[in-house]
Amino acid sequence: MYEFNVKLRVRYAETDQMGYCYYGNYAQYFEVARVETLRSLGLSYKELEDNGILLPVSDYQIKYILPAFYDEELNIKCMIKEISDFKIKFDYQTHNQNDKLLNFASTTLVFVNKQTKKPVNCPNILKEKLLNTSHEK
Amino acid sequence: MYEFNVKLRVRYAETDQMGYCYYGNYAQYFEVARVETLRSLGLSYKELEDNGILLPVSDYQIKYILPAFYDEELNIKCMIKEISDFKIKFDYQTHNQNDKLLNFASTTLVFVNKQTKKPVNCPNILKEKLLNTSHEK
Amino acid sequence: MYEFNVKLRVRYAETDQMGYCYYGNYAQYFEVARVETLRSLGLSYKELEDNGILLPVSDYQIKYILPAFYDEELNIKCMIKEISDFKIKFDYQTHNQNDKLLNFASTTLVFVNKQTKKPVNCPNILKEKLLNTSHEK
Amino acid sequence: MYEFNVKLRVRYAETDQMGYCYYGNYAQYFEVARVETLRSLGLSYKELEDNGILLPVSDYQIKYILPAFYDEELNIKCMIKEISDFKIKFDYQTHNQNDKLLNFASTTLVFVNKQTKKPVNCPNILKEKLLNTSHEK
Repeated sequence: MYEFNVKLRVRYAETDQMGYCYYGNYAQYFEVARVETLRSLGLSYKELEDNGILLPVSDYQIKYILPAFYDEELNIKCMIKEISDFKIKFDYQTHNQNDKLLNFASTTLVFVNKQTKKPVNCPNILKEKLLNTSHEK
Repeated sequence: MYEFNVKLRVRYAETDQMGYCYYGNYAQYFEVARVETLRSLGLSYKELEDNGILLPVSDYQIKYILPAFYDEELNIKCMIKEISDFKIKFDYQTHNQNDKLLNFASTTLVFVNKQTKKPVNCPNILKEKLLNTSHEK
Repeated sequence: MYEFNVKLRVRYAETDQMGYCYYGNYAQYFEVARVETLRSLGLSYKELEDNGILLPVSDYQIKYILPAFYDEELNIKCMIKEISDFKIKFDYQTHNQNDKLLNFASTTLVFVNKQTKKPVNCPNILKEKLLNTSHEK
Repeated sequence: MYEFNVKLRVRYAETDQMGYCYYGNYAQYFEVARVETLRSLGLSYKELEDNGILLPVSDYQIKYILPAFYDEELNIKCMIKEISDFKIKFDYQTHNQNDKLLNFASTTLVFVNKQTKKPVNCPNILKEKLLNTSHEK
């Protein structure tokens, strides 16, 4: 439907004693990637929250192929794969500076009311932006 | 094959502004759980590394059902599901203090030579411990 | 005034490629230490927050002497050094399993109203507990 | 002696349930800031390590004035204040988008041989770059 590339540099804090970027850090990288992807569509995740909509993650899968190392600038390709009334699915591919595929991953997020913590429908603004963007292509 | 329960308390640092334990922290919790599970079998992950064997994660999946909150003591049931010459698979179930299932997850780890970073066979000590433990049951 | 010892094991995620426990992790360890220190006095930091009092940190200093390594069980001695109407000061000493001093540190926290984010006086329950504890000694 | 500004956006993972950027995260931000400051001088911290020199932090102080919030782009002014044969001292000031001072901090780092973990003298390349840069001003 829509894809966007986000660049991120591996911090020293994010390495482990194996010399790899710790496997648990990618969840955080993908959060950054989807926020920047929404921003590229003119959507602010912060504003969604300020307007009472939370997007908790309901599932996450990642397949690791090669490690990332300290100070490498990673390219995360973030793809919005599916959007429905109830959820939004993002896929990710992480490449290093030599264009090697390091891992690929997927997250599903659901729409939740900030006060009640109950599921709500996808905000119209989000659906419209995505549909328009697809039409333009 | 073998299961072990590990208790872990959610740190303030691990919460996010949604008031939830951040979705990315569980990878770290499961790392702690599998290290303690190995320790309960008389195996030290640290010693494995000191003996030249690394166990990087090759894939990770998690399904989130309910959030964990600050200061909750979580129970992580860690299950060794499969061990072969090439990999070891752990499953996890996280419950909160009210015994609600918060999430379930799975990781596969591979055996790698610390110097060459090439795959190696599962160390005998690990296989023996697990087979003996299963026999004892 | 009051001191309490908290044990904490260095997680793999908390190491860096130097093979040390990353210098930035101690802030989190000290947070755990002061929460457990308050709990040992019958005080729950979570309940303080639920009752509308936040305790943000206003300053933090740490002097590093020796590094901590993966899987080491650290002993953090947490000392309440000073409590006034406006702030509470904790000192910390981290020792490893061989009883070597790794670092010493200090944090000052202030009392803030959760809604207004304005400074408030130290909750009575906190002052009473600490004064009684000191008297008992 | 030398100063450089680094921009960094607060990640969701870095917030806590107070809605603030967790106080412990700044150590990581300052690590990023000093690495980028060295890079602006044509120095790669990664290469220093590859050449056998580690720079562990020997002390760190921070004074918090105002919190940072989710998605804010922070400006970290990083200042090299002192460089001697044995150590290098960086000061930091963090401002938010409205140019409010959020905190100021200081770290001292020492030079250590990667193999022996013993103190070594400041690498010449580092001293030369800094002296030349100061002369140019």
